Amino acid sequence: MNDSSQAHWNLDHIVSGLRDARVDWRGPRGRLRESGGDREFPSQQSLRAIVLQLCGALFPMRLGPIDLRSEVEDFYVGHTIGSALDALLHQVCLELHHMGRNQTEPESDESMRARAAQIVRQFGAALPQVRRALDLDVTAAYQGDPAAHSVDEVLLCYPGVSAMIHHRLASVLYKLGVPMLARIVAEIAHADTGIDIHPGATIGKSFFIDHGTGVVIGETAIIGDRVRLYQMVTLGAKRFPPGENGELKKGLPRHPIIEDDVVIYSGATILGRVTIGRGSVIGGNVWLTRSVPAESNVTQASLVNNMPNCGLGGA
Amino acid sequence: MNDSSQAHWNLDHIVSGLRDARVDWRGPRGRLRESGGDREFPSQQSLRAIVLQLCGALFPMRLGPIDLRSEVEDFYVGHTIGSALDALLHQVCLELHHMGRNQTEPESDESMRARAAQIVRQFGAALPQVRRALDLDVTAAYQGDPAAHSVDEVLLCYPGVSAMIHHRLASVLYKLGVPMLARIVAEIAHADTGIDIHPGATIGKSFFIDHGTGVVIGETAIIGDRVRLYQMVTLGAKRFPPGENGELKKGLPRHPIIEDDVVIYSGATILGRVTIGRGSVIGGNVWLTRSVPAESNVTQASLVNNMPNCGLGGA
Amino acid sequence: MNDSSQAHWNLDHIVSGLRDARVDWRGPRGRLRESGGDREFPSQQSLRAIVLQLCGALFPMRLGPIDLRSEVEDFYVGHTIGSALDALLHQVCLELHHMGRNQTEPESDESMRARAAQIVRQFGAALPQVRRALDLDVTAAYQGDPAAHSVDEVLLCYPGVSAMIHHRLASVLYKLGVPMLARIVAEIAHADTGIDIHPGATIGKSFFIDHGTGVVIGETAIIGDRVRLYQMVTLGAKRFPPGENGELKKGLPRHPIIEDDVVIYSGATILGRVTIGRGSVIGGNVWLTRSVPAESNVTQASLVNNMPNCGLGGA
Amino acid sequence: MNDSSQAHWNLDHIVSGLRDARVDWRGPRGRLRESGGDREFPSQQSLRAIVLQLCGALFPMRLGPIDLRSEVEDFYVGHTIGSALDALLHQVCLELHHMGRNQTEPESDESMRARAAQIVRQFGAALPQVRRALDLDVTAAYQGDPAAHSVDEVLLCYPGVSAMIHHRLASVLYKLGVPMLARIVAEIAHADTGIDIHPGATIGKSFFIDHGTGVVIGETAIIGDRVRLYQMVTLGAKRFPPGENGELKKGLPRHPIIEDDVVIYSGATILGRVTIGRGSVIGGNVWLTRSVPAESNVTQASLVNNMPNCGLGGA
Amino acid sequence: MNDSSQAHWNLDHIVSGLRDARVDWRGPRGRLRESGGDREFPSQQSLRAIVLQLCGALFPMRLGPIDLRSEVEDFYVGHTIGSALDALLHQVCLELHHMGRNQTEPESDESMRARAAQIVRQFGAALPQVRRALDLDVTAAYQGDPAAHSVDEVLLCYPGVSAMIHHRLASVLYKLGVPMLARIVAEIAHADTGIDIHPGATIGKSFFIDHGTGVVIGETAIIGDRVRLYQMVTLGAKRFPPGENGELKKGLPRHPIIEDDVVIYSGATILGRVTIGRGSVIGGNVWLTRSVPAESNVTQASLVNNMPNCGLGGA
Amino acid sequence: MNDSSQAHWNLDHIVSGLRDARVDWRGPRGRLRESGGDREFPSQQSLRAIVLQLCGALFPMRLGPIDLRSEVEDFYVGHTIGSALDALLHQVCLELHHMGRNQTEPESDESMRARAAQIVRQFGAALPQVRRALDLDVTAAYQGDPAAHSVDEVLLCYPGVSAMIHHRLASVLYKLGVPMLARIVAEIAHADTGIDIHPGATIGKSFFIDHGTGVVIGETAIIGDRVRLYQMVTLGAKRFPPGENGELKKGLPRHPIIEDDVVIYSGATILGRVTIGRGSVIGGNVWLTRSVPAESNVTQASLVNNMPNCGLGGA
Repeated sequence: MNDSSQAHWNLDHIVSGLRDARVDWRGPRGRLRESGGDREFPSQQSLRAIVLQLCGALFPMRLGPIDLRSEVEDFYVGHTIGSALDALLHQVCLELHHMGRNQTEPESDESMRARAAQIVRQFGAALPQVRRALDLDVTAAYQGDPAAHSVDEVLLCYPGVSAMIHHRLASVLYKLGVPMLARIVAEIAHADTGIDIHPGATIGKSFFIDHGTGVVIGETAIIGDRVRLYQMVTLGAKRFPPGENGELKKGLPRHPIIEDDVVIYSGATILGRVTIGRGSVIGGNVWLTRSVPAESNVTQASLVNNMPNCGLGGA
Repeated sequence: MNDSSQAHWNLDHIVSGLRDARVDWRGPRGRLRESGGDREFPSQQSLRAIVLQLCGALFPMRLGPIDLRSEVEDFYVGHTIGSALDALLHQVCLELHHMGRNQTEPESDESMRARAAQIVRQFGAALPQVRRALDLDVTAAYQGDPAAHSVDEVLLCYPGVSAMIHHRLASVLYKLGVPMLARIVAEIAHADTGIDIHPGATIGKSFFIDHGTGVVIGETAIIGDRVRLYQMVTLGAKRFPPGENGELKKGLPRHPIIEDDVVIYSGATILGRVTIGRGSVIGGNVWLTRSVPAESNVTQASLVNNMPNCGLGGA
Repeated sequence: MNDSSQAHWNLDHIVSGLRDARVDWRGPRGRLRESGGDREFPSQQSLRAIVLQLCGALFPMRLGPIDLRSEVEDFYVGHTIGSALDALLHQVCLELHHMGRNQTEPESDESMRARAAQIVRQFGAALPQVRRALDLDVTAAYQGDPAAHSVDEVLLCYPGVSAMIHHRLASVLYKLGVPMLARIVAEIAHADTGIDIHPGATIGKSFFIDHGTGVVIGETAIIGDRVRLYQMVTLGAKRFPPGENGELKKGLPRHPIIEDDVVIYSGATILGRVTIGRGSVIGGNVWLTRSVPAESNVTQASLVNNMPNCGLGGA
Repeated sequence: MNDSSQAHWNLDHIVSGLRDARVDWRGPRGRLRESGGDREFPSQQSLRAIVLQLCGALFPMRLGPIDLRSEVEDFYVGHTIGSALDALLHQVCLELHHMGRNQTEPESDESMRARAAQIVRQFGAALPQVRRALDLDVTAAYQGDPAAHSVDEVLLCYPGVSAMIHHRLASVLYKLGVPMLARIVAEIAHADTGIDIHPGATIGKSFFIDHGTGVVIGETAIIGDRVRLYQMVTLGAKRFPPGENGELKKGLPRHPIIEDDVVIYSGATILGRVTIGRGSVIGGNVWLTRSVPAESNVTQASLVNNMPNCGLGGA
Repeated sequence: MNDSSQAHWNLDHIVSGLRDARVDWRGPRGRLRESGGDREFPSQQSLRAIVLQLCGALFPMRLGPIDLRSEVEDFYVGHTIGSALDALLHQVCLELHHMGRNQTEPESDESMRARAAQIVRQFGAALPQVRRALDLDVTAAYQGDPAAHSVDEVLLCYPGVSAMIHHRLASVLYKLGVPMLARIVAEIAHADTGIDIHPGATIGKSFFIDHGTGVVIGETAIIGDRVRLYQMVTLGAKRFPPGENGELKKGLPRHPIIEDDVVIYSGATILGRVTIGRGSVIGGNVWLTRSVPAESNVTQASLVNNMPNCGLGGA
Repeated sequence: MNDSSQAHWNLDHIVSGLRDARVDWRGPRGRLRESGGDREFPSQQSLRAIVLQLCGALFPMRLGPIDLRSEVEDFYVGHTIGSALDALLHQVCLELHHMGRNQTEPESDESMRARAAQIVRQFGAALPQVRRALDLDVTAAYQGDPAAHSVDEVLLCYPGVSAMIHHRLASVLYKLGVPMLARIVAEIAHADTGIDIHPGATIGKSFFIDHGTGVVIGETAIIGDRVRLYQMVTLGAKRFPPGENGELKKGLPRHPIIEDDVVIYSGATILGRVTIGRGSVIGGNVWLTRSVPAESNVTQASLVNNMPNCGLGGA
């Protein structure tokens, strides 16, 4: 009557095989000793819900509930932010707890919770500035794309704007000391838009990414005001030699500095701690691993013709 | 007992900070004066549901409900399209209302609603042709990819086909005068597939995009029959000088014309109102900003060797 | 009172137009004759749910339910895998049934069901090895990215790891003879991460893709151990001449072989059945259509300077 | 493969049979002529959602969201009531529209909408009094039941209190002129609690129904303050002779008047426009069809022994 | 951090305790031997969904989707019935399979499936008559209750009508030989309305139950046309002596026959295979265990005064 | 365009009116002072989910997931109980916290949590006995109802059995010291079945309630083995005089004792701490307020004829 009537999967065998694999993995890390076996990780699903709430609260009449009326606006905003911050507090607690697992002197629950509440309070206080920064990003997108019909279309439809909403929220989290939450928020945007901005990146005012699929902006990148990027632009790191223990050194400045008013066309790749001078234009598919002065105009042709051995190099 | 017991977020402060930011943003635009404070924008979520219904109605036995039987097919199609068109009517009303906000002589509700109904009726009437066009796209994909095992696999699994379902629907909306709805449908496909086709683009029969991530096709692009594209191909615009008021001119023809039977390999970038002659092959990673005659075979090597200064230029 | 009060969509006309289109499409294929009109295709939605369950069962404390405790771990794993394999059995039946449609001597239901159960049993038995392989991939990612703070962050946040979870599951399905299910699983990852790995590809241990958007790995590609890839890398096929009947030949080895310890930087494109020797480094945006020996260091510059006519060719 | 593979239901025949039945039913009523074929009825599902929202807004810390904190309380209340009243407005419009169908001079849409908004505004303004009345009912339940441990338990667990929340809301709707909405709200409580209070019934302060299953209180019943009822009590109408056209006359006072401080035990039935004097006690299973003076103590025994022919009558 | 961090439930012990209890229960019944361990019971949840679909299909403009328009009506009806009958087929298969478990010569799957399809086909064919019968019930309710404002209110709000929709569907299932499905449908109505009508009961035209909570109508009851019942009426069986093996005999006629045009007031109890003559009125709370002739008027008083020893008896 | 466009609800006024009402209510109770303003009540919705999980774990093949196979049974049971007990722990914590609010020396969080875990552990350990007791109840129902076709039908369809599942779980909670959780579970059954059993009631083996709507069993009732009840039976308390402060005394034995093998027919009401001797039969609609010896046969007639003044009394 049913496809699975006569089926038998040897579940006991699979379950014990997976248990053995977990034991082998956990063994050297001693993970279970610290945590007592609980699941202590932040949740992508929760953060997705939190970001959705914050989007609604930041732009109530456009990203909030479909039938919101202005009389209800402030009630909605307060209720929604209250709910989002409560949920965020739980995620912050999870990350702080996870961070503290390997410390020799574990922090008390009470102290950790107070720290978490402080982080969330500061995050909440930053929301109005986030909104103001996003208004400038939206305006930049509207002015920068001849195909845009209205600022509302830009806010509702442009993946570059959606990526920036996530980034400006993730950036606050990153600076407040919860990098895993920040990273999860960034990856939500990456999954939705194909735009991968590390939450550690510093991005100025009126920033616009058009189309956006394949854009990668690294952890220590610094971007000025009024910069414009197209799809498949990479602001990455050059290859690092691994350290003595075979692992890569973490946290060093290793991504480009892009000054104000720069435009970088699709497919361009800029690697390493180089500086692109203000007002420069970087052409499509260009591969650049050195600094250029202000007002430069860099194209594949100019690289091939003038400086074949330095800029057009490997990683 | 609960993480948030002692928490206090200063919600009043956040709410008033966000209200101030909204007032500053809305002020110069006078948005609230016209609309009475309602949320008058089309909804991505609704359009996603509508497109899902239309996919089912267009391909009932493959994208419709999992247990559909042929006896029910026409009932299902009629019921589903009826429901989708009713929902679409509401979205069309929202876009027309939004467009009309800044007009000096506002259209009557009745007249606007009649116009909306007319648009939806024409959209519905176009569905059979959309299905026939998509059947050709599916066949082209099956014939063009050695890895495809059946036309059904192509319809169910190929992001390029999914992008074309969205595009052919969005294109009808665009031509009927509801560009924001069209754009939202296009962005749904962009988010799902990484393929960004502006709904204003004109695309001929039997079109196939393989893999597709990173493909960008601009608003005024024109593509002939039997054209094939690979991932990360851009059919874009060259840089325009901004107008006197600092904004870019909107709506001018500024993207390539691709004639019949052209193949464009991955990573190729073609910019500006150039024409790629019928039967041409554009190699991978090529950067092209000028027209080429029919049956051309353009590669990076050919560009470097023969015409270093014109085609391999910046944006 | 309601937007759609006076609307009339001529549904009868649309329904009959769509029916005609279906008849025209099905006619030459005789699809209905074999199947009796049922919907006989595997379902992406079901496979998405199955993969989600398997992710939880493979990594219960990190991808399983948010409040899982270690006392429940094995119960959860057994219950979840049992449920996932039952659901998978149904999908396997659908694919076998679909495959068998055009055979001259149709297999009995009983025999087909026994074959399906055997496939699912083997799939279940492979799960522990899949987990062990993924543990190595996670470790490779953690060691390869200076921005990674912990192995847990890598598992939870890295799209390259998510793509590999899908690929290692899809690969087992592909080898067990259900390529359409495998393909659907691969496309779920493609939609979520922008990484398009054909389930037929063979990938060794400790594989890491960073960022990942735009990566394409073809059906017959073979990748060794400890290989690292960046975003927008293509391991593709060169153009094939179509066969006599105008269709492309299917199934031939046509994608690259990447040996152990190779690194390929962003935007590099390697096409055809070429071999990249062990320990080689392929620079960003390189276009390569020939084999290179072990320990090669290939950059755009080296290609332009030393071998202008062979490697830097078109597709 | 599937149970329904060879099934065929003759759907065309069933559909036409049902269409004929609908035509026969609608024919004499001419329903379709007036309404243009829309579905113009209020929705039980919507009203259920509205009542749930109002319950939360009336008792935010006990019936509101499970994690509500007092800082968010007013924001939550305002947002929730705003949303509930918007949804209610739509339902009021549907009822007014439905009522107006058979009028010779149909009201304009604009006028009807203004009337609906006025009703909703008055309903909203009544909510604080509703809350105060319910607080008294809760207190009465707590004081009247020896098994009650706290006022909170009473609010959360007592079906009699749940029924009164619905009744006090339904009563406001009934008085504002939307009896069908009122009735739907009453039937939601009936389905959930087995307590059937007609929204037209007038009920005083500090009312308590214990257990409650099977209680029926008729449309024109009038109940004083501090009255207590047990399960299966009926306050009903005696049989009326049908009017000339065979229909029953509607709207006449035909249910009991219960004065202050009366207690009525389980299974008692009181029928007709009789008055139960203040402070009376009506025993279990008593069947009463005449008035009794204040402070009466009526039991089955007293009825059988003292007044066999008047009170113990049929309907 | 989490309430359950240090908790340990001894799950292994609970699981084995429950397994032992199941083994003890199943042992004597040998249930597992026949069924191979599958879950072979019909599902209340599925039947609830099926009945909801059938309600919509029977009364599309009132119980169907909230925004249904008449243009879509037949499509909706056909699609919904098709889907409901497919789901019903699966439930019928489950019941037939369950019935056949203990037979010495098990029926083939094919034969059972054909029988199931035949049952569903007959069920579908009966739907138009069910609708016509329900139209008469609705009219009877409207005419019988002075508080009813419209036939639409009656259909939407009256639990007695809801119970009859379920009963008329359950009755068809019962007669077609799937009594467990019938019983589940009846219990759905019982849970929702407090009205417990056994699907074996035979009920004539224009039947009306007012209020209804506590009504019980037994398996072999026969009810004529134009009968009216109030809340808490029981049409039950007298006590039977158990058979030799200690079990009660099943299936014998043991419930009352109610002839045409009878009214039975609230709380009346009629037990045994007695006949209530046409046009009789049975008063509230009456306890009756013998037949009465046509046009009788039975009250508690008449029973006490005139026939103290026969009618007013125990069970 | 939208019904609510011009609406304005004076939300500020409603919100402040409701705030005032809350302040007035809370004021005398000082509720907020203790709790810090959190919502500290158990949740009916959570308990409903927990009971649903427990039902599945107690009867996996009949109330568990529809497609459960016996291979998965123990995994499912362990996983589901683990998840249910974790959720229950949270609810127990909420009730203990709520209870402790008014204590002069508040318990530490740690101690309260340990007590809660102990309660949950004991609850879990009782589950196998609960299952065994329910098996006897199911058998009693099957043997006691001539209309029952199988024990499976009884478990799936009989509201009396559903009520007993809830009661036997609620009874364990009640005895373990969490009466509000117990009460909420009892009210879930009351809402679903119309059967109101106080969790404090003590009920023996092989208990069966047929039909059940309107049954009320009080807090201190004691019921022996093999007792059978019909719909609308009340085992209640007589009226108590209120104490000096106007409240009723709580917790005294005040409900009937029903000895083994008693049958009580529909509508019978037994009030006060009386004893119904073993083997007695209580007839329908009987009103009884005194004890009867073993093997009594009590009917309305016997009461009226033989003892008019004692048993047939008021409350």
